[in-house]
Amino acid sequence: MTETRTTALLTDKYELTMIDAAIASGHADRLSVFELFGRRLPATRRYGVVAGIARVLDAVEDFRFTPDEIAYLRDSTTLSDETLDFLADYRFSGDISGYAEGECYLPGSPLLSVTGTFAEAVLLETVLLAILNHDCAVAAAASRMTSAAHGRPCLEMGARRTHEEAAVAAARAAVVAGFAGSSILEAGRSYGIETIGTAAHSFTLLYDSEEEAFDAQIAALGPGTTLLVDTYDVTTGVERAVAAARRAGGELGAVRLDSGDLIAQAFTVRQQLDDLGAHDTKITVTSDLDEYAIAALGAAPVDSYGVGTKVVTGSGHPTAELVYKLVARQDDSGQWTPVAKKSSSKQSIGGRKYAGRVVAEGHAAVELVVASDDPQAARDYLASRGARPLQVDLVSGGEINEEHRGPAALDAARKRHESSRAELPYQAWRLSEGEPAIPTVMEVL
Amino acid sequence: MTETRTTALLTDKYELTMIDAAIASGHADRLSVFELFGRRLPATRRYGVVAGIARVLDAVEDFRFTPDEIAYLRDSTTLSDETLDFLADYRFSGDISGYAEGECYLPGSPLLSVTGTFAEAVLLETVLLAILNHDCAVAAAASRMTSAAHGRPCLEMGARRTHEEAAVAAARAAVVAGFAGSSILEAGRSYGIETIGTAAHSFTLLYDSEEEAFDAQIAALGPGTTLLVDTYDVTTGVERAVAAARRAGGELGAVRLDSGDLIAQAFTVRQQLDDLGAHDTKITVTSDLDEYAIAALGAAPVDSYGVGTKVVTGSGHPTAELVYKLVARQDDSGQWTPVAKKSSSKQSIGGRKYAGRVVAEGHAAVELVVASDDPQAARDYLASRGARPLQVDLVSGGEINEEHRGPAALDAARKRHESSRAELPYQAWRLSEGEPAIPTVMEVL
Repeated sequence: MTETRTTALLTDKYELTMIDAAIASGHADRLSVFELFGRRLPATRRYGVVAGIARVLDAVEDFRFTPDEIAYLRDSTTLSDETLDFLADYRFSGDISGYAEGECYLPGSPLLSVTGTFAEAVLLETVLLAILNHDCAVAAAASRMTSAAHGRPCLEMGARRTHEEAAVAAARAAVVAGFAGSSILEAGRSYGIETIGTAAHSFTLLYDSEEEAFDAQIAALGPGTTLLVDTYDVTTGVERAVAAARRAGGELGAVRLDSGDLIAQAFTVRQQLDDLGAHDTKITVTSDLDEYAIAALGAAPVDSYGVGTKVVTGSGHPTAELVYKLVARQDDSGQWTPVAKKSSSKQSIGGRKYAGRVVAEGHAAVELVVASDDPQAARDYLASRGARPLQVDLVSGGEINEEHRGPAALDAARKRHESSRAELPYQAWRLSEGEPAIPTVMEVL
Repeated sequence: MTETRTTALLTDKYELTMIDAAIASGHADRLSVFELFGRRLPATRRYGVVAGIARVLDAVEDFRFTPDEIAYLRDSTTLSDETLDFLADYRFSGDISGYAEGECYLPGSPLLSVTGTFAEAVLLETVLLAILNHDCAVAAAASRMTSAAHGRPCLEMGARRTHEEAAVAAARAAVVAGFAGSSILEAGRSYGIETIGTAAHSFTLLYDSEEEAFDAQIAALGPGTTLLVDTYDVTTGVERAVAAARRAGGELGAVRLDSGDLIAQAFTVRQQLDDLGAHDTKITVTSDLDEYAIAALGAAPVDSYGVGTKVVTGSGHPTAELVYKLVARQDDSGQWTPVAKKSSSKQSIGGRKYAGRVVAEGHAAVELVVASDDPQAARDYLASRGARPLQVDLVSGGEINEEHRGPAALDAARKRHESSRAELPYQAWRLSEGEPAIPTVMEVL
């Protein structure tokens, strides 16, 4: 069994030492707003994709220090008894609003706004960033792939190329961005994602001949299965594959190509299948694909793409470069004060942000982000500019908004991504490096 | 609570459909050898680093299909009752040998050899690859960083930049490769790793002034703490930091720089600290470091490096590109047959491999990999060439060799890596792209 444990120790130690010092000095209860955002998009990207919101909600709910966690902290740190008591009683009781899952985002978009006491809000920093940095990175890569695939199904098969638990989250993020299924069974169980896959080269090599292997696979999985035809010679493999399905009284579902020059092979194999009369037999390709390879295969007679390494590792950008910053806090008189780091690089604008997307002539034109300590004034301002509001309530007074997790939420996220991406102007779809698809305009009310 | 679940569904569906077909055709029990290896090292790398072996042993032990997993599979797949019964009873009962954790490796090094029936050995493919592809990628990057740091401590702080569970494994892999500690508490609890960290910019911003924040931190953590001095102005920050420690009756432990030109700042801040008489106050730097930045900081008066994104994401190579291939299996008469995919690219040499490292004139000279169906002959051959044997018994008849997991194993792995890396010739230490540090020679006996 993997250990039963809460998410509470998936946390950088300094979150706890900060709380310890703030409790001792009497500042831990100052009401605070933290925002989670990206200062920029990873270099080549035109837009980001929000994924992982449902996992954020699970992690917030599971963030508890049980006696086991407290015992570990008591033995291994200098945290005060008062701090340990605070942690033992911890349940997030504040508010979280943010971008809904599937939404596209830009530099400066406030993906999450977390409001609560300093102590309760800072404590969530590490796990919120970990989830969104990972899931958004995968979703951004996946979205480029599904857009390059122009409607042909993309299937996630990268479980073996990333951390075993990250693989499950990656499958989910890929589905948010339009992938049609995943190879990893836990993604099926945990998230209701359709799982796919039939056989590897080892299966063919287990048998004394390729024919025997194909017959055995078809006997178990039916002629509609996908046969891997490149263990020995592709042309012979295709011939044997079609024949094996017909011996079993059907037409072969698909052949899979996993090596060599996929573009050239796709044309040759399609011709061969057609010559054999196997017009309905599909071709799926799976060798080290990324968004560029998928785009290049667009003209070839390929029916679906199996993507591994590149989708689960964010295709060159394995982290979304998101940060979590204190942007406002109350002072002793209860007044809100915008705050931000001042020195050299990494400057931010203080104050809580409200975001909307301005659509003009059918396409998104501007990401409008307004800093204000008056929520209604900020919302009115966004409305006056015709901006579609981008933030939704995810947690209110510690209560999870159930609309944003579970199988229906995943389906909604996938649809939301499709329409959010469709709303972006043409340059968003380009795979080349460049500026964000739309500019972010920051205003302070 | 995170769900209690076994590792069994961290598995690609096709492992199960292959078993289903092999059981039906009567081939599932053919004794087989699978090998886990890299065809090449990621482009810039001179050597790989084995990390994750202890996690592999845990995953093998936990690989069980409980009634929950069986129920999911019965509902969502076409697996036969016979296959489901096989899975319900599954415990790996074969042998696994492989490279010990911390060892350096080269292209073609057989990191794991898994011997058992086809069904029991193929089933482990996904989770074994996931663990080693992730952990070895992190360890390879971490090893480049610790070698570039020339003895200055490197500290892992990347939890927020990768999947939350991957972060725990990454901390462990970094420690195998010489890192001195980690920011993530779960790495402390799960693996006994020293955890580090004091405060972020948000802590300083919580207070009405930097002085108040420094006083509060020192009151809780003592003057030996590390103060983050770049929230406002670095020079003023350093002055206030030293003064705050002295107000509390001590000398400041360290200052942390997290932005700006770290090399220039390190010199300025060191001079300032010395001018203030704070000769023992150390400087730690933490802004987007990788092995190149660490090397460049070698001439600057820096005492330790905090590394985030780049170590947990493998510094440009988030996966180690390892594969798991059937290399030999018995036929119906019980004869061993070497097998390998034949078509186009991705060719492998069939047959079980035995590996040794030939050391000449004090340095490793050749990775000798011998394919043979006679273990004793292979070992004798390696001995005749003066090769240090590289494979150890990890699992024997399903029993885990406990020497290779637990806190003592982590410590041993760290020492093993230090000596294995020291044994490599000089070119191994170069950060630039190039050939593997030593050539791999493959022979078939």
